[in-house]
Amino acid sequence: MPKQNNIVIIGGTACGPKAAARARRCDPNAKITIIEQGEDLSTATCGLPYYVSGVIDNEDIMVARQSDYFKIIMDMEVLTETRATAIDPGAHTVEIIDLKTQQRSTVTYDKLVLATGSTPAVPDWKGKDLEGIFTVTDIPDANAIRGYLSKLGDKKEVVIVGAGLIGLEMAEAFVSKGCHVTILEALDRVLPTLLDPDIAAHVEKHLQSKGVKVICGQRVSGFQGDENGRVRKVLAGNTGLEADLVLLSLGVRPDVALAKAAGLAIGATGGLAVNKYLQTSDPDIYAGGDCVENVNLITRKMMLAPMGSTANKHGRIIGTNVTGGHDTFPGVPGAAIVKVFDYNVGRVGLNESQAREAGYDTLISIVPAFEHASYYPGAREIIVKIVAEKSTGKLLGGQAVGMGDAAKRIDVLATALSFGATVEDLANIDLAYAPPYNSALDPLHHAANVIRNKLSGYARTLTPAEVKQKLEEGDRFVLLDVRSPMEWQEQRIEAEQTRLIPLPMLRRKLGELSRDEEIVIYCQTSVRAYQAQRILDGAGFKNVTFMDGSLAAWPYETTFKTRGK
Amino acid sequence: MPKQNNIVIIGGTACGPKAAARARRCDPNAKITIIEQGEDLSTATCGLPYYVSGVIDNEDIMVARQSDYFKIIMDMEVLTETRATAIDPGAHTVEIIDLKTQQRSTVTYDKLVLATGSTPAVPDWKGKDLEGIFTVTDIPDANAIRGYLSKLGDKKEVVIVGAGLIGLEMAEAFVSKGCHVTILEALDRVLPTLLDPDIAAHVEKHLQSKGVKVICGQRVSGFQGDENGRVRKVLAGNTGLEADLVLLSLGVRPDVALAKAAGLAIGATGGLAVNKYLQTSDPDIYAGGDCVENVNLITRKMMLAPMGSTANKHGRIIGTNVTGGHDTFPGVPGAAIVKVFDYNVGRVGLNESQAREAGYDTLISIVPAFEHASYYPGAREIIVKIVAEKSTGKLLGGQAVGMGDAAKRIDVLATALSFGATVEDLANIDLAYAPPYNSALDPLHHAANVIRNKLSGYARTLTPAEVKQKLEEGDRFVLLDVRSPMEWQEQRIEAEQTRLIPLPMLRRKLGELSRDEEIVIYCQTSVRAYQAQRILDGAGFKNVTFMDGSLAAWPYETTFKTRGK
Repeated sequence: MPKQNNIVIIGGTACGPKAAARARRCDPNAKITIIEQGEDLSTATCGLPYYVSGVIDNEDIMVARQSDYFKIIMDMEVLTETRATAIDPGAHTVEIIDLKTQQRSTVTYDKLVLATGSTPAVPDWKGKDLEGIFTVTDIPDANAIRGYLSKLGDKKEVVIVGAGLIGLEMAEAFVSKGCHVTILEALDRVLPTLLDPDIAAHVEKHLQSKGVKVICGQRVSGFQGDENGRVRKVLAGNTGLEADLVLLSLGVRPDVALAKAAGLAIGATGGLAVNKYLQTSDPDIYAGGDCVENVNLITRKMMLAPMGSTANKHGRIIGTNVTGGHDTFPGVPGAAIVKVFDYNVGRVGLNESQAREAGYDTLISIVPAFEHASYYPGAREIIVKIVAEKSTGKLLGGQAVGMGDAAKRIDVLATALSFGATVEDLANIDLAYAPPYNSALDPLHHAANVIRNKLSGYARTLTPAEVKQKLEEGDRFVLLDVRSPMEWQEQRIEAEQTRLIPLPMLRRKLGELSRDEEIVIYCQTSVRAYQAQRILDGAGFKNVTFMDGSLAAWPYETTFKTRGK
Repeated sequence: MPKQNNIVIIGGTACGPKAAARARRCDPNAKITIIEQGEDLSTATCGLPYYVSGVIDNEDIMVARQSDYFKIIMDMEVLTETRATAIDPGAHTVEIIDLKTQQRSTVTYDKLVLATGSTPAVPDWKGKDLEGIFTVTDIPDANAIRGYLSKLGDKKEVVIVGAGLIGLEMAEAFVSKGCHVTILEALDRVLPTLLDPDIAAHVEKHLQSKGVKVICGQRVSGFQGDENGRVRKVLAGNTGLEADLVLLSLGVRPDVALAKAAGLAIGATGGLAVNKYLQTSDPDIYAGGDCVENVNLITRKMMLAPMGSTANKHGRIIGTNVTGGHDTFPGVPGAAIVKVFDYNVGRVGLNESQAREAGYDTLISIVPAFEHASYYPGAREIIVKIVAEKSTGKLLGGQAVGMGDAAKRIDVLATALSFGATVEDLANIDLAYAPPYNSALDPLHHAANVIRNKLSGYARTLTPAEVKQKLEEGDRFVLLDVRSPMEWQEQRIEAEQTRLIPLPMLRRKLGELSRDEEIVIYCQTSVRAYQAQRILDGAGFKNVTFMDGSLAAWPYETTFKTRGK
């Protein structure tokens, strides 16, 4: 009989339990031990904002598997409320401490799995330990927030520091609890590491429509409390924001202290370095989940991808490999989706800013569209932005935002990006069509075709941000609105540069436009504007563009003051 | 100045107008003529069932573009209520007849586009021309059905012949209009060319729960009418079904009469043969939409794909190519999605039956799952079935059915299939995760991993259909239910072979099972059943399998009579 394989797993949230379960299925006879410092294994920490809001009203349903499941059914040793304090890779041992009894002991391993996750990034701000300042990473955190909120009474000024995924989810949670919420973000936009400014602007607008105050570009310098040690103010810039409760959501950092102390290689991202087998620099130690770095499938560079979805995939691969298998993880395009009140907000791959930083020559398209056939009831809008490499047409990434089904489009893009799709590939994918589910052409097809039109030189555009800048700077050009007079009456961009020539009249009214002046065309979604550009092209106009996405993609104010001559 | 390109397009529903619009954008100076026998261009015929039901209450909104759009904005000649009667490829001419005046004339072309679509397949059944027997392909058809229904009063027996996409959509429409609906299908299941029997059975069960009577395996032989020439009976087998209205929905056939008469090559599928540029056997004649055949991306054989989505993609490519471009169409994996009352039903690629017919050695998985995190409110179930090639792990196709979001999974599969994905690829795609949108692992990830578990020999299964057959045939084996006693009380498979050993007791109760007998395990979704199989494997049992998808994927009766010894 072969020697029993002795597998020790540190971390019991997502990657750890998944690795343990997979290892058990691959090797019914292995000795498997899970070490977790909290009370529970397999907690669904991604559900915490919904537990704070009360959408999920019972913390128990966020514990996917009770410890007994792992003990009795999976035949494992489960050490909860136990912390690993040191690893000796040479001796193949882990020092642990029982947090209930403070008793220390040593466990040995043949294969060790590090699934130590991440911890909230909190700068060393003055006053950061005042009562009423929270982070949210586990069920006790969420319970503490719920408890504190319930004591606040009617007056509930909440300041959220950091407009990332958790910050926005928590904003909705606090609003649903009757709080007045302000989001403070040091960078220039919400979801700054995920979205481009022109897409983030739509999210910000939606947040404001829900009563959330969004302040970007302001750095926090500290907090002030009252005589009871409770937070009262968030200090940012020259001002102090009143706060009865503060949530710090500045993202997470890989928890690599144990690994570092054991001499394992750490990557430049700050995450544990692993190879495609998810093996660390010590071949008997594997690692996965939030604590490791991943290959970005687009740039092939290392990145952090602290997502429960990735952690679960890592777990299965590690479970296979610690029991003798050779499974590999390809990396991630970096998909994310978040519910922000009534908006679905998703992204995958590189956004335009990231693509440019990475040195790509980019083309983008911004396409507003209905999620399904507009004539079928209940069609909600989304705005899709995709980014491609100009020289190859290769898809680099995409973003989608709106009340309509953004998630489906992000998942299609994630799949396409995993296979190195070009915009031509994307334009021809046979996405399932019936009126309750889609239009004959998906918004992604349109988005891909707009980029193809740009590649072939047929379409030439300015982004809404570029048009806004031209208007703000008082540039001389014609901003040509080709919609109907009725649409013009309802809403338009008010500026001295704006003129209305409805598309059906355009061919007859060419004489009213000068062939020498710059013309930028817009309509509602850019379908008519593109057509108008082609009509002017055909008539010999030389300086014509249209605005990407037109009014439906315009997140800015619509009135621009006339400049003096 | 170069000679003006003279483009003539026959057919004005989907591919034709799209080709025309694209050609105009590519060549602002081309002469473009559209010939359409109906009154309108660009009608959204996929919306017809919803117009019959009244979900869409205005026929006008199904006309995407009025003729004036093409005339005035697109600067085209639009000949509606005009039929093309002959093509002379040598002379580059088309004979046409104005259906209003019966006047005949000839148009010339440089490039001709055939977008002649398809016509409903109707066998030469006796009585098929009785009043009250309909097909539904255009707005006049839908209006005729609405009108006939309104005259029927309370007694409305509707028989739908053919359980394809349109048949099922129309069943819902008729039920919503207060009709009593029977569906007659000659083959053994609903959606027989799209779904496997085990997935179709779920759709059939749902139809029945909505009061629709489904009769499969019965061929229609004709119709009987009353003294006024109105249909009264559908004759099928030895019986006659009472019918006040009959809908024939037996699929469509490519409309290739014109092309055939002109000597153009027709493929074995009955569709017009085109190359990747969508060029027919005459290089100056292009064709697209329902009338052509397509490359099946999985088998690389030709197939028919009469879908508005494909027609639109064809149209763009043709518009490019008739104006000097060289765009290509890669083919389709054959995606379809249909709303059947509260069920979303989709498929793409090859189903198991088709894969076997095509000679593949297949592995399948059937995975019941929630559409998003089960702890987040409103999670609805879907059942996913995927099919892969055993020797390569290559994905061949997938099906999804249930109240949950099936469309997203079909679109991800369609994308993965377009790039020749394996189940390993599928298992690692970074699909976007947050609790309102998905679980950490998507149902597709689970489905891919089940097949990987089969490939590695860890998982061994029988399908629900195979288990049912064993029970019906009175096989000797143990059908082991490993759920909780409470679940067992609520619902179980009642048969003398069934035994309950809840999973947490299994390790202790191994002595109660014989190592020699065949054991088939089930639970609710097969997560526990797989775990139980691995426990028995580890204990040295040699003849153990579990049931794919378990009770959640079981569409059959649950009671089996005890056989005599």
